[in-house]
Amino acid sequence: MQQDEQMKQKQAMMQAQDQEIKEKLKDFKNKLLVMSGKGGVGKSTIAAYLAVGLAKKGFQVGLMDVDLHGPSIPRLLGLKGTIQSSAESNKGIPLKYLPNMEVMSIESLLGDKDTATIWRGPLKIGVIKQFINDIAWSNSDYLVIDCPPGTGDEPLTIAQIIPDTKAVIVTTPQEISLSDVRKSINFCHQVNMQILGLVENMSGLTCPYCGKTIDLFKTDGGMITAKKAGLTLLGSLPLEPEIVSEGDIGSVAWMDNKDMPYTKSFTTIVNIVADLTK
Amino acid sequence: MQQDEQMKQKQAMMQAQDQEIKEKLKDFKNKLLVMSGKGGVGKSTIAAYLAVGLAKKGFQVGLMDVDLHGPSIPRLLGLKGTIQSSAESNKGIPLKYLPNMEVMSIESLLGDKDTATIWRGPLKIGVIKQFINDIAWSNSDYLVIDCPPGTGDEPLTIAQIIPDTKAVIVTTPQEISLSDVRKSINFCHQVNMQILGLVENMSGLTCPYCGKTIDLFKTDGGMITAKKAGLTLLGSLPLEPEIVSEGDIGSVAWMDNKDMPYTKSFTTIVNIVADLTK
Repeated sequence: MQQDEQMKQKQAMMQAQDQEIKEKLKDFKNKLLVMSGKGGVGKSTIAAYLAVGLAKKGFQVGLMDVDLHGPSIPRLLGLKGTIQSSAESNKGIPLKYLPNMEVMSIESLLGDKDTATIWRGPLKIGVIKQFINDIAWSNSDYLVIDCPPGTGDEPLTIAQIIPDTKAVIVTTPQEISLSDVRKSINFCHQVNMQILGLVENMSGLTCPYCGKTIDLFKTDGGMITAKKAGLTLLGSLPLEPEIVSEGDIGSVAWMDNKDMPYTKSFTTIVNIVADLTK
Repeated sequence: MQQDEQMKQKQAMMQAQDQEIKEKLKDFKNKLLVMSGKGGVGKSTIAAYLAVGLAKKGFQVGLMDVDLHGPSIPRLLGLKGTIQSSAESNKGIPLKYLPNMEVMSIESLLGDKDTATIWRGPLKIGVIKQFINDIAWSNSDYLVIDCPPGTGDEPLTIAQIIPDTKAVIVTTPQEISLSDVRKSINFCHQVNMQILGLVENMSGLTCPYCGKTIDLFKTDGGMITAKKAGLTLLGSLPLEPEIVSEGDIGSVAWMDNKDMPYTKSFTTIVNIVADLTK
């Protein structure tokens, strides 16, 4: 009997939390889940830069890193500092990257950057819910969510607690990555998540010595996959050693280098995303 | 009362299963867990090729793909066919890649290659246990396990149910990958898993047109990390468009091309692994 009572209390608490999440989510006009079928395709890089690109266009943006095992957003953006809690609201204050862009990552909560965080599935769901409820986000035009690769607990949790999220799927052009992206597409269909479009990353590399294009991971694979699945190809980005280096030191200086092919392609992607979510 | 009884029965069943796993694991002389801090560093490729390399040296090898979300082993090896169950033992029969090499992957169990498999954490633990218990593995010199990136349910499950596993950690030389690899190293220390060594992958790319080396993801980062952590660097592998292409079509023809730099480096790694586990 007492067990029943405890169970009921627990369920009531969870329902209250879910209700609070629903209310909180109304503060974000658009929710974008950046996902990928496999890791190492540049998903976090694209999530981070997409958020910065939208903010630089004047939108208010929140960037939420739910890749609990390998959070890379703070490093990519050179964001130091830890999450402090607000005295008034008792909520965590997200880091400010730009005056109109806030960032939340598990790495900014935990101290040692090299410590492994061992998360069992159910714990992850709780953390993701807290990322929304217990953080004092500003009202935003966009909430960009960086999700770990694959179709596990994290994207499923997002799909369940943020039902109007739209997916941006990142892939590289080679077959083994595309086969995983098809799984991500099917995942979105299964959980009724709308797909905004596909981004093809690492699409060709220009040799810095001879200027010729090396198709390391092939090209056009993303375009073909998008066409077959009836999806929009938001754009293709070349593999660019300079971007790798800047990412390592947390710089986005390339964004101001308007003549760079990568910058041109990325700007187009940001504009298309803004258009599609107007 | 009845609930208590059911709980006890369930616990007894789980204990029996764990005992069976312990017995079964005695059939494998060496267990190698190939892991990485982040995805896309070529972990599955190295797990697959390490298994083939050891088998080609004459060892009996089992290759177990526990990357339930993005199983890529069958594709990398061009392995078709599904797991059949044996009439006598009621166990699944692993696929034969070579007369002395068996493979088990979730992809060989499920039909549609593009279907997303949505696994919640606790389910994964059960599947991994079944991969050991309910598969009719031959007695082997090596069980090579391909684990999804990160420090989540899968490596933790392996650490708990296969306590004498040794880790082979794969990384690329760039900082963002190395910071994740340090998390993997700490994870191994936390769960008392011995680390056999590090493999540095995508370490430099030779332009096929001008022959110059492009340090796309920098070089030597793996060596420096290994030295700092007091670990063995098992070897460095270049980024090689031909390997990407062969991986896409499931060929290992490059193994016979003894003059190729990739082949030379890989052969050295296999020999070191064999020496360290003698």
